[in-house]
Amino acid sequence: MATAENKQVVLQRYIEEAPRETDMAMGRGKIELKAPKGSAALLVKNLYLSCDPYMRGRMRDFHGSYIPPFVLSQPIEGFGVAKVVDSDNPDFKAGDFISGLTGWEEYSLIRSTWQLRKIQPDDSVPLSYHLGLLGMPGFTAYIGFYEICSPKKGEYVFVSAASGAVGQLVGQLAKLHGCYVVGSAGSSQKVDLLKNKLGFDEAFNYKEETDLDAALKRYFPEGIDIYFDNVGGAILDAALLNMRIHGRIAVCGMVSLHSISDPKGIQNLYCVVPKRIRMQGFLQSDYLDKFPQFLEHVTENFKQGKIVYIEDMNEGLETAPAAFAGLFSGKNVGKQVICVARD
Amino acid sequence: MATAENKQVVLQRYIEEAPRETDMAMGRGKIELKAPKGSAALLVKNLYLSCDPYMRGRMRDFHGSYIPPFVLSQPIEGFGVAKVVDSDNPDFKAGDFISGLTGWEEYSLIRSTWQLRKIQPDDSVPLSYHLGLLGMPGFTAYIGFYEICSPKKGEYVFVSAASGAVGQLVGQLAKLHGCYVVGSAGSSQKVDLLKNKLGFDEAFNYKEETDLDAALKRYFPEGIDIYFDNVGGAILDAALLNMRIHGRIAVCGMVSLHSISDPKGIQNLYCVVPKRIRMQGFLQSDYLDKFPQFLEHVTENFKQGKIVYIEDMNEGLETAPAAFAGLFSGKNVGKQVICVARD
Repeated sequence: MATAENKQVVLQRYIEEAPRETDMAMGRGKIELKAPKGSAALLVKNLYLSCDPYMRGRMRDFHGSYIPPFVLSQPIEGFGVAKVVDSDNPDFKAGDFISGLTGWEEYSLIRSTWQLRKIQPDDSVPLSYHLGLLGMPGFTAYIGFYEICSPKKGEYVFVSAASGAVGQLVGQLAKLHGCYVVGSAGSSQKVDLLKNKLGFDEAFNYKEETDLDAALKRYFPEGIDIYFDNVGGAILDAALLNMRIHGRIAVCGMVSLHSISDPKGIQNLYCVVPKRIRMQGFLQSDYLDKFPQFLEHVTENFKQGKIVYIEDMNEGLETAPAAFAGLFSGKNVGKQVICVARD
Repeated sequence: MATAENKQVVLQRYIEEAPRETDMAMGRGKIELKAPKGSAALLVKNLYLSCDPYMRGRMRDFHGSYIPPFVLSQPIEGFGVAKVVDSDNPDFKAGDFISGLTGWEEYSLIRSTWQLRKIQPDDSVPLSYHLGLLGMPGFTAYIGFYEICSPKKGEYVFVSAASGAVGQLVGQLAKLHGCYVVGSAGSSQKVDLLKNKLGFDEAFNYKEETDLDAALKRYFPEGIDIYFDNVGGAILDAALLNMRIHGRIAVCGMVSLHSISDPKGIQNLYCVVPKRIRMQGFLQSDYLDKFPQFLEHVTENFKQGKIVYIEDMNEGLETAPAAFAGLFSGKNVGKQVICVARD
């Protein structure tokens, strides 16, 4: 029976603030390249792994969330694209490509096969896109925009962290819907991508703005109908001041509030009353019945060249801790993916 | 042509923080008890005047809100119940009772008759109730509960400022809907009314709680499905921590955030994502087409004894400035009304 070396990225300690590279460590194990008889499991070779901000929540020693913490000294769990090496499950066979929750390691034994999705390889769509454009972040953008924002043609849409895994698709869906779209990001390179590659009407670097309220008034003299919030904090506070009557705020993530304990809090929430704002948090996992229509819609537009997607691909499992930590300082440009192996 | 003395309450200066009695002053004018020919106006005798928290917004020199500021040295404008003395409008005649926007004075000339509602006097319903239970506050409760909260039988409902003009009806509607209802208020007298007169399942005095999060965990061990927010601030922050998944927050008013500039802001807004909370500001005026069904529903339940209403009635126009200022320190017990004249 074949046994292989199995490099891993494990969690060293639970975190309190933003994750650092040193909170993770490389480990080395051995693994039998076989799915045990009667286990209904799959033994997979991991190809691409996804770095997603929500994973920070699982690095905290907090059991009250919608998803449990990682286990210390065990490989980190996250979305990945993998190739089946051995299957004890009649729904999968060796050679199949799958996406779903796997481990940050070279090979994984996956017992929770119900959460896996089989991928039909398609030369016109990179495999790794099943972690971004066609995966959880893309689905988050799709649900957030269509189900939570109640968009109408011609409306003014603001997206924060706009070049990120979710934001870049939100902006493009909004453009396809006939909206006017402005994005914020944290570097001039990202602003350039938003305007020149992703088709946003305008974009700005929030780090260069001393007054976010004034910046939003400049880009939205008529106010904002829809704010797709990927960050919380000061940008949310400024957006509240600039919402139009009956505006909607889809709250997708609050990176700034989670990682930095901000003693200022949100000051402008009172605006929701006179402006009759609807503010709604959501998780894509509540809408999984809509996944097939999402896949069809986005794949079709991608193939027609109406949607593009920017990935930040790191080579090698060893790069994962730094890449993950980099998410929270905005080091990544586009969707952060780790390539463990190409096939 | 009869001319009468006309005592008035006028705004002396625009305010920055909470209104004080001395921001208003008594004035004395004269008024012709006649609606000018061709004006389509009404000359009314004001009977009952309503003190409502939203009026604070009109005391500020700020023109960007949904309603313009008051004019200095002019009578304050607010909801009232009045009797028509003279009418130049074919829809009204002398002797009719009306409710709507009028002045804080003994007699008013009302030119905006489109916003008036004719009241059919009914011995079983006090006239002043058209400023509370059957007026704007009651309609706010009705819209907020049924249209914004999406209530389901058996859900856990929390109401702040629960003995106030809006809160007391929200709690009773929620009980009639089959919910479990807890209210917070600022005195033991109000807590007693909530439990023993208004039919709340539980109630507590927030001023006696050193830890509002712990208080809510005590009253809602299973969490809160619906929070009807009349205050904002620290109670909203604690409620966010205690919401259940897919909880709803109807934001009706944020007394604490408006009047006291709170440097803490709202700290726990991040909860909206993992808990998928929908938070929505609203104004009753967006739903006026539902006013007739509100009136019928609440009047019917009131006549059957299934709904009660607590008023805090002050006698005499002179008492209005202190009564209004008292709203913001919670001096009133129930809906604050000023009796100017009984008929």
